[in-house]
Amino acid sequence: MIKVAVVGSTGYVGTDLIRLLIKNPDVDLKYITSESYEGQSYSSIYENYRDVFTKTCTGKDLEKISEEVDLIFMALPHGIVSNEINSSMLEKVKVIDISADYRLKDIQVYEKWYNTEHGSPELLDEAVYGLCEKNREDIKKARLVANPGCYPTSSILSLMPLVEEDLIEKNSIIIDAKSGVTGAGRGINLGTHFTECNESLKAYSIGAHRHIPEIEEQLGSLVSFTPHLIPMNRGILTTSYANLKENLEYDDIKKIYEKYYKDEYFVRLTKEGVFPETKWVKGSNFCDIGFKVDKRTNRIIVVGAIDNMIKGAAGQAVQNMNIMFGLDEKAGLEDVSIFPV
Amino acid sequence: MIKVAVVGSTGYVGTDLIRLLIKNPDVDLKYITSESYEGQSYSSIYENYRDVFTKTCTGKDLEKISEEVDLIFMALPHGIVSNEINSSMLEKVKVIDISADYRLKDIQVYEKWYNTEHGSPELLDEAVYGLCEKNREDIKKARLVANPGCYPTSSILSLMPLVEEDLIEKNSIIIDAKSGVTGAGRGINLGTHFTECNESLKAYSIGAHRHIPEIEEQLGSLVSFTPHLIPMNRGILTTSYANLKENLEYDDIKKIYEKYYKDEYFVRLTKEGVFPETKWVKGSNFCDIGFKVDKRTNRIIVVGAIDNMIKGAAGQAVQNMNIMFGLDEKAGLEDVSIFPV
Amino acid sequence: MIKVAVVGSTGYVGTDLIRLLIKNPDVDLKYITSESYEGQSYSSIYENYRDVFTKTCTGKDLEKISEEVDLIFMALPHGIVSNEINSSMLEKVKVIDISADYRLKDIQVYEKWYNTEHGSPELLDEAVYGLCEKNREDIKKARLVANPGCYPTSSILSLMPLVEEDLIEKNSIIIDAKSGVTGAGRGINLGTHFTECNESLKAYSIGAHRHIPEIEEQLGSLVSFTPHLIPMNRGILTTSYANLKENLEYDDIKKIYEKYYKDEYFVRLTKEGVFPETKWVKGSNFCDIGFKVDKRTNRIIVVGAIDNMIKGAAGQAVQNMNIMFGLDEKAGLEDVSIFPV
Amino acid sequence: MIKVAVVGSTGYVGTDLIRLLIKNPDVDLKYITSESYEGQSYSSIYENYRDVFTKTCTGKDLEKISEEVDLIFMALPHGIVSNEINSSMLEKVKVIDISADYRLKDIQVYEKWYNTEHGSPELLDEAVYGLCEKNREDIKKARLVANPGCYPTSSILSLMPLVEEDLIEKNSIIIDAKSGVTGAGRGINLGTHFTECNESLKAYSIGAHRHIPEIEEQLGSLVSFTPHLIPMNRGILTTSYANLKENLEYDDIKKIYEKYYKDEYFVRLTKEGVFPETKWVKGSNFCDIGFKVDKRTNRIIVVGAIDNMIKGAAGQAVQNMNIMFGLDEKAGLEDVSIFPV
Repeated sequence: MIKVAVVGSTGYVGTDLIRLLIKNPDVDLKYITSESYEGQSYSSIYENYRDVFTKTCTGKDLEKISEEVDLIFMALPHGIVSNEINSSMLEKVKVIDISADYRLKDIQVYEKWYNTEHGSPELLDEAVYGLCEKNREDIKKARLVANPGCYPTSSILSLMPLVEEDLIEKNSIIIDAKSGVTGAGRGINLGTHFTECNESLKAYSIGAHRHIPEIEEQLGSLVSFTPHLIPMNRGILTTSYANLKENLEYDDIKKIYEKYYKDEYFVRLTKEGVFPETKWVKGSNFCDIGFKVDKRTNRIIVVGAIDNMIKGAAGQAVQNMNIMFGLDEKAGLEDVSIFPV
Repeated sequence: MIKVAVVGSTGYVGTDLIRLLIKNPDVDLKYITSESYEGQSYSSIYENYRDVFTKTCTGKDLEKISEEVDLIFMALPHGIVSNEINSSMLEKVKVIDISADYRLKDIQVYEKWYNTEHGSPELLDEAVYGLCEKNREDIKKARLVANPGCYPTSSILSLMPLVEEDLIEKNSIIIDAKSGVTGAGRGINLGTHFTECNESLKAYSIGAHRHIPEIEEQLGSLVSFTPHLIPMNRGILTTSYANLKENLEYDDIKKIYEKYYKDEYFVRLTKEGVFPETKWVKGSNFCDIGFKVDKRTNRIIVVGAIDNMIKGAAGQAVQNMNIMFGLDEKAGLEDVSIFPV
Repeated sequence: MIKVAVVGSTGYVGTDLIRLLIKNPDVDLKYITSESYEGQSYSSIYENYRDVFTKTCTGKDLEKISEEVDLIFMALPHGIVSNEINSSMLEKVKVIDISADYRLKDIQVYEKWYNTEHGSPELLDEAVYGLCEKNREDIKKARLVANPGCYPTSSILSLMPLVEEDLIEKNSIIIDAKSGVTGAGRGINLGTHFTECNESLKAYSIGAHRHIPEIEEQLGSLVSFTPHLIPMNRGILTTSYANLKENLEYDDIKKIYEKYYKDEYFVRLTKEGVFPETKWVKGSNFCDIGFKVDKRTNRIIVVGAIDNMIKGAAGQAVQNMNIMFGLDEKAGLEDVSIFPV
Repeated sequence: MIKVAVVGSTGYVGTDLIRLLIKNPDVDLKYITSESYEGQSYSSIYENYRDVFTKTCTGKDLEKISEEVDLIFMALPHGIVSNEINSSMLEKVKVIDISADYRLKDIQVYEKWYNTEHGSPELLDEAVYGLCEKNREDIKKARLVANPGCYPTSSILSLMPLVEEDLIEKNSIIIDAKSGVTGAGRGINLGTHFTECNESLKAYSIGAHRHIPEIEEQLGSLVSFTPHLIPMNRGILTTSYANLKENLEYDDIKKIYEKYYKDEYFVRLTKEGVFPETKWVKGSNFCDIGFKVDKRTNRIIVVGAIDNMIKGAAGQAVQNMNIMFGLDEKAGLEDVSIFPV
């Protein structure tokens, strides 16, 4: 049994982590912390846990917690975690940080895009970018894993084979991304007030979203990236465009995607002519990928779909845990999506 | 291992059954039938199963199927099942019928409300109404279980303690029910075309819905029942009103509900002042119940919430299976709702 | 030209008022006030007015405003308006109050249900309850009109003919009401955060909603009233139940409804077997009413549908203005609903 | 008074046309035809017209109709209209065709993309592409106007100034488009069944949508175009990407957009840093446009928003009528969007 703590358990990522960890037979969930709800029973906050999960939120005493557990999930906003973690803590406990604090290797890029000082730059080298399908071997040995952002997960998995096989023109990547409203978290504001975002559609942070440097670092390419807010609860769809270097056929590229993902349980390739839809991955840890070769323009268009809260956050964090502790990578993550939900 | 067949596997109830049966470690899902999709792989119809569930739909050869399995789930429309099942079949295989065909004991009531002839009236006596919390002992011994309707499940569980303890005036029951659109099934029609039901609200079948005789037979009372279509995928909320015979306090009634449901895992009572919301049960087999004693009018208002596809259909069917075969009643049904989903 | 001010112009009712007033050829909209947005251009707050409506929000200087306009719409929360209005002001200007402050004649009922002191009880006698179809003659002469609440508008219009003709049993009225989320206003809170109310359904304020005394005063009967929050932007549907005193037929009751509403442009009766749906009134000032006589239980079920922001608030306020100033009652209110919207 | 007929009045475009034409004081709506609903009162099909609009649908006798009216709106599917219209008819009556049949000048392109024969190729030369802001002078004189497609309207208005001023690299245009479900019309199918498209997101017809040749002909450039289906009723948002030829600043480009659109009532430019959202144009004939110069990649990203049923169909058709008949171009089209709706 792995003893685990979730720090920041009452945000949307925190609550999905708890749901997934409860399903995992090898996990002993010892601490769930919350600053806002300290001392309150979890099921009074999230009533889906009525009579089922009886734990109470505690405060964030990381000293104590790191003595008593094997792994801490940090589900806090960026800019906080890097001030809470240090080398001596990592000697006692492993950490999966779901914030952005350890995702970027270049501290100057971090400080520019996040507009804050980094609290523990000395750990950046050690931190492993936890995109499981890309860095599994490093994750196995890691003490500190930076769980990828939601948009980057879908974007990078969609484009990685093309980039690594050098099939597309440098800097031609355009990613048009769409996310459900859970991506904005549980903090209330006018933009996510029901009647302000229901039945409407907008782009935001055009060319300025903080996931841009993360995608660019992983893909080694400039990207144009535009996120959109979709009036639905969950799901990310990324539609990525790139100029092909050569005149390639669908089947040529299909083979390359299969080379990368044939043995990856959580990445599923659609058949030719079929494209991912968020409903087929919602509630699951899958990333579905499909693509079209547009001969007229010699571009490839790749569509990726994930559940932003699962493969884009809590699920990938659990997958990272499973890898770090030598468990079955699928433990707790085997659900397909409930449909229609 | 219980060998199981799902007849009518490609409707919404069928697909949720399959999802739940796959989770059940004691189930061997041998046949999934579909008239519309015979010969097609299930994952080409429901792409959430891509690369995960590889079965193909077969035809509905009940002779053969009943030789080879221990239990058949009939997930077909009413009026069909009663012509497919007979006594000799029940000597070979148990049946859980999710249609309405065996729910009403009175064949005349059935034929009047369903406007069709019943194909096997000789089985009505034997059939057990599969409301697990009400008829568990009979279900254990049953060969043929009539799985309750979605609205009746929430309505009867909400009102049963009041009726059985004789706390409310005869025939004073009014049930105002609301359902998400999955209740209408997967068959397309103008009323469930996205742009016709999204962002709107309507009552339908006022005083004429086929679930009325089912509720009345179980509660032994006339009821006024009005269902409404809610622009959301899943969930039923029933708001029931009845005149209290005596001047009772909240706590008196609370004790009575606890007497009935304290040991029932899938029925959860809310705290005073808290009322069920469909989001807390969606995706789960729970029925949440809360009530208010309105002293001004001496009425009780009881709110019940279920996931119409799970506790209202596929989940309760699996719960019935677990009871019939002596399995853990919760097997395959332990998920709490994903939130927000 | 009637000179008009909207006090509290940036809430949802305020903005719908402005939209409707701009359409009214006899209105000169002189002041729009806002405490939160004083000095800001209205189109920077509500961008649908981009390049079209160029007014700027001013402060709430009622002294000055009441000198310069003929009519003030007060679109502020309850408990504030009664402290702002007084007799001397009413000598200079007419007022339509959209808050609850002057709706109840009995000050003790007001202070109990609203849990606040009333600032100008001396005006309660004079204030006219502005349900146009009920009190048109009084409204014509009124200086102070209390615009009805959203739920009461649909409830009272639905039940008034039955009550006034003494067709139903005293105190047997049950109103099960459903509203879109605009009913909760523009103020942000967790309950109206998109991901908390989307795809879910709940009852709230059971037997305790502040619209209860308003309905009861107008109908002269106790009522059980349960409001529900529906995941859609606009629209109210009320499903009302009452015990019929006599064994009446549909056509008998139809005649009575026609007697009350045949000449009422904004109240439309549906045909037998057809029931109102919010989509057919959304965006309009209509109240659609349909009913069913349930012979089995000898109850009548009446369904009413309105756009909560229009006939339930801003539209009815404009209708009141038209009546008070002798304009065409339909001026500015002639739109049918856009469909599908 | 202009005498008008709407042929195909019961589809979504037809019904929005009727709504707008009723508002237009210079229009006498003489005929509304429907093959499916011939002989039925319009308000029994669209109940928003209950008691308000009392016309009955007639058959499609174009001979007769063209004798009696000044203008016919053809709101039928593509491939039909070109077989119904001919030169002699145009001598009697003007036609605005809302289908695609006369939008493409090159008949081979039409027949390839629409996979059907064109019924009246001899009229292609004469037909004017009815993008009002582009072709106003030709529309004034036209007998046959091809009303633009919904996606092309937003795409072309967004990009036209850049293309005409030669600011962007040839063939670098990528348009990622998103539409509400009304775009799919009123015909039922599984893809627009509520529970199949609600709470989900997908791309479709990638690189193969029939609006591609229309956009390409108007812009004189190859484009990559990917439409997406958004779970909402109305609205189109197009996010367009192109490589800038030179290193231009926001203000330089702003001036160019103003040159094209400063005097265009129905095209509104957002302020720097503000981007269009569909909610601000929904229910109106406006096209809102905003853009971002992404210096890092030297691309421009232009966001356009329209109501797909209005500026993208019925509203633009009415605008074309107003231009053709010398009416105020805004007649019947002055509504801003209802918000929140």
